[in-house]
Amino acid sequence: MLQDTVYDILIHNGTILTVNNDFDIVKDGLLCIEDGKIARIEEKALNQPLPAARKRVDAGGGIILPGLVNTHTHSPMTLFRGLADDLPLMTWLNDYIFRAEAQWLNPETVFKATLLSCAEMLLSGTTTCCDGYFFEDSVARGVQGSGMRAVVAQGIVDFPAPGVPEPEKNVDEARQFIEKWQKKNPLIHPGLFCHSPYTCSEKTLGSARKVADDTDALFQIHVAETKKEADQIQETHGMSPVQYLDRIGVLKANTLVVHGIWVDQEDIACMAKRQVGVSVTTESHMKLASGTAPVPEFLEYGLPVGIGTDGCASNNNLDMFQEMDFMAKVHKARLLDPTVMDARQVLTMATRGGAEAIGLGEDIGSIEVGKRADVIIVDAHKPHLTPLYDPSSHLVYAASGSDVKDVIIDGRVVVKGRTLLTIDIEDVMEEVTSLARQVAS
Amino acid sequence: MLQDTVYDILIHNGTILTVNNDFDIVKDGLLCIEDGKIARIEEKALNQPLPAARKRVDAGGGIILPGLVNTHTHSPMTLFRGLADDLPLMTWLNDYIFRAEAQWLNPETVFKATLLSCAEMLLSGTTTCCDGYFFEDSVARGVQGSGMRAVVAQGIVDFPAPGVPEPEKNVDEARQFIEKWQKKNPLIHPGLFCHSPYTCSEKTLGSARKVADDTDALFQIHVAETKKEADQIQETHGMSPVQYLDRIGVLKANTLVVHGIWVDQEDIACMAKRQVGVSVTTESHMKLASGTAPVPEFLEYGLPVGIGTDGCASNNNLDMFQEMDFMAKVHKARLLDPTVMDARQVLTMATRGGAEAIGLGEDIGSIEVGKRADVIIVDAHKPHLTPLYDPSSHLVYAASGSDVKDVIIDGRVVVKGRTLLTIDIEDVMEEVTSLARQVAS
Repeated sequence: MLQDTVYDILIHNGTILTVNNDFDIVKDGLLCIEDGKIARIEEKALNQPLPAARKRVDAGGGIILPGLVNTHTHSPMTLFRGLADDLPLMTWLNDYIFRAEAQWLNPETVFKATLLSCAEMLLSGTTTCCDGYFFEDSVARGVQGSGMRAVVAQGIVDFPAPGVPEPEKNVDEARQFIEKWQKKNPLIHPGLFCHSPYTCSEKTLGSARKVADDTDALFQIHVAETKKEADQIQETHGMSPVQYLDRIGVLKANTLVVHGIWVDQEDIACMAKRQVGVSVTTESHMKLASGTAPVPEFLEYGLPVGIGTDGCASNNNLDMFQEMDFMAKVHKARLLDPTVMDARQVLTMATRGGAEAIGLGEDIGSIEVGKRADVIIVDAHKPHLTPLYDPSSHLVYAASGSDVKDVIIDGRVVVKGRTLLTIDIEDVMEEVTSLARQVAS
Repeated sequence: MLQDTVYDILIHNGTILTVNNDFDIVKDGLLCIEDGKIARIEEKALNQPLPAARKRVDAGGGIILPGLVNTHTHSPMTLFRGLADDLPLMTWLNDYIFRAEAQWLNPETVFKATLLSCAEMLLSGTTTCCDGYFFEDSVARGVQGSGMRAVVAQGIVDFPAPGVPEPEKNVDEARQFIEKWQKKNPLIHPGLFCHSPYTCSEKTLGSARKVADDTDALFQIHVAETKKEADQIQETHGMSPVQYLDRIGVLKANTLVVHGIWVDQEDIACMAKRQVGVSVTTESHMKLASGTAPVPEFLEYGLPVGIGTDGCASNNNLDMFQEMDFMAKVHKARLLDPTVMDARQVLTMATRGGAEAIGLGEDIGSIEVGKRADVIIVDAHKPHLTPLYDPSSHLVYAASGSDVKDVIIDGRVVVKGRTLLTIDIEDVMEEVTSLARQVAS
């Protein structure tokens, strides 16, 4: 590195958790960013001179880590946050969620709710999300306005859906969406999202798979979320949802299996063989009483596994710190073993593992020279984070999204001292509140 | 009410969740406080004139609810927050926690760590805690300094303990502690805390019970936390921990059974018959892989059940909002039923249920005229709490402790706009950090 390099951004005075393969930790860390990439990482005691930089970010003794990757959400569902809870699954879906979606979703409401969702994610340290819903053009516009990185996937289902009243046009719509967004913005990765093996026919799944292959886009699908689904696929096809999807050629690299609760050893081995990624949304699984995905078993098989929040109607927030806490604890409780899913493993899933699961592992997910600069800083100077023995432990077991101080995405500061710089939050909250008044009436 | 009454404090412009028996909700609520008590509750539209008051608190459109009651913690363990995690239970206890306690606890360290703990609890909306540890005189001093309400219980165990090297003096120490604090401060309720049926002999338990009865103090005890404990008691006494404690006359009113994981139907019926209170610490149960307490079953039997965080070494924070979220979700997942433990039920446990479980149900736990004024305000004007359809849902599923804006205890404002008025937080964080540096070395 030449002496006279002037970096774009320099972050200092914090402990860097690189979340690289060796989980290297740099105390008194210095992190330099240039052209949107991480250019330099090293230890730098407080009294040593810092290199030149156009912008300095003082981490204030806090924790510097890769931006969190939320591998599964339906961003616009912030509009329905807390609309209905604690109900039988089918009552909740049919009488509340599907009804509200049919009545209230349109390009404008989806855009506004996406902005709200991005604001919440950015303020809680999520720098990348993997979204799947309808009116994804509006989602992509919202994400673009927020400065986030995202996989944005157009929903596909075999019945009339918001924005696509004719089911037979769903796959075409998805193709057009992907082609439109593919070269528009390097932060936005268009993809498609087949709802599930029980709501998409074999033909639909096959056409969608072809579009994903043709365009090199991520193929995202809910799989084995409920026992009912597993029973239904078993009855119809004589095999498990995973085996069925594999038989029809859907499972391969660049596929994200979401949920994966009702799977057996054979299914997991199949997923590993096909090199799919997995997204697990623990809080939603628990709240909807769907079951528990066998995450330690996924990891044993070497699957890339990420953490997702799911949509706000079944969580009811997008806080990845809380999601990490649930992920770390639920498997200890299930297996009666306090050593499973330790803090570093969970933190790895929320960053690098998630990036790998959604196909962005080469670009993001860890703090390593050459990767894109998606970095967050957690303010550890708080009563509930004092004292600090182990940063990973604090991030998983004690912190929450509101402890995030600064957020940098692709080398751009989007949150500074908890102020969101890209979205007018007051305006967005007012608009969504006003929409919600109509939804509730 | 006379026209010319001048209240001490008036809270307005928020939705009041009374958490009374009917779970009454008052939109545009007005709450008046006089002489430390709740004096008036009514609806008052924004354009109507407000009564006279020496102090006005504007809830800013937020949620006004009873202060949260943390029914089980070991406050000074903030000193060991995140010192060791993800370890086998006995390694964690013997090699880390017991060792650190033996080396580092003294009246001064316990006092400082208690102040840190109280700061964290107050800033996250907990107005009352039920503590059990050693050097409880220091805990009581810390709690007193913070302005919190608490049951403060001196620990009793049949081996040398911090502050009480001679086990045979434990019960006497507890009696002296209770007598010292019983009339000192109306907010502090001294009690005793027998560690467990496997670390206290029948004789110790009997003497402790007598002290509790003589002094009308709460008798707190860990019961049936691990399978190992249940097996051991079964082997030694030929019955379950609950049955054993009942046989020796320990279970009666004014008793708090903490944990209650390894209990069967007969045990629960026995606890109900003896009218004991129960404290369940879900996050700690999960993190230590102890199992899951059958909370819906406790509630079916009419037991008063409260929520506790346990100490910071096994949680690792004291945030009752997160604890509510876990409580609501873990039983849905266990019973595969999304309708169990709904938001109102969980919120009731975190307030009124907890107050009843620790014997303070007549004084606190709900917003009702005549009760002591322990009231908190949650700021709902945040992206992750927008929109707002149902306040209870938000408090349980979407909020976290950092959303608490104001805290009033016994009619005294202790947190105002997230500023803690009773403790010098910077000083306390610095002192505990400095202690932790020695602990870690």
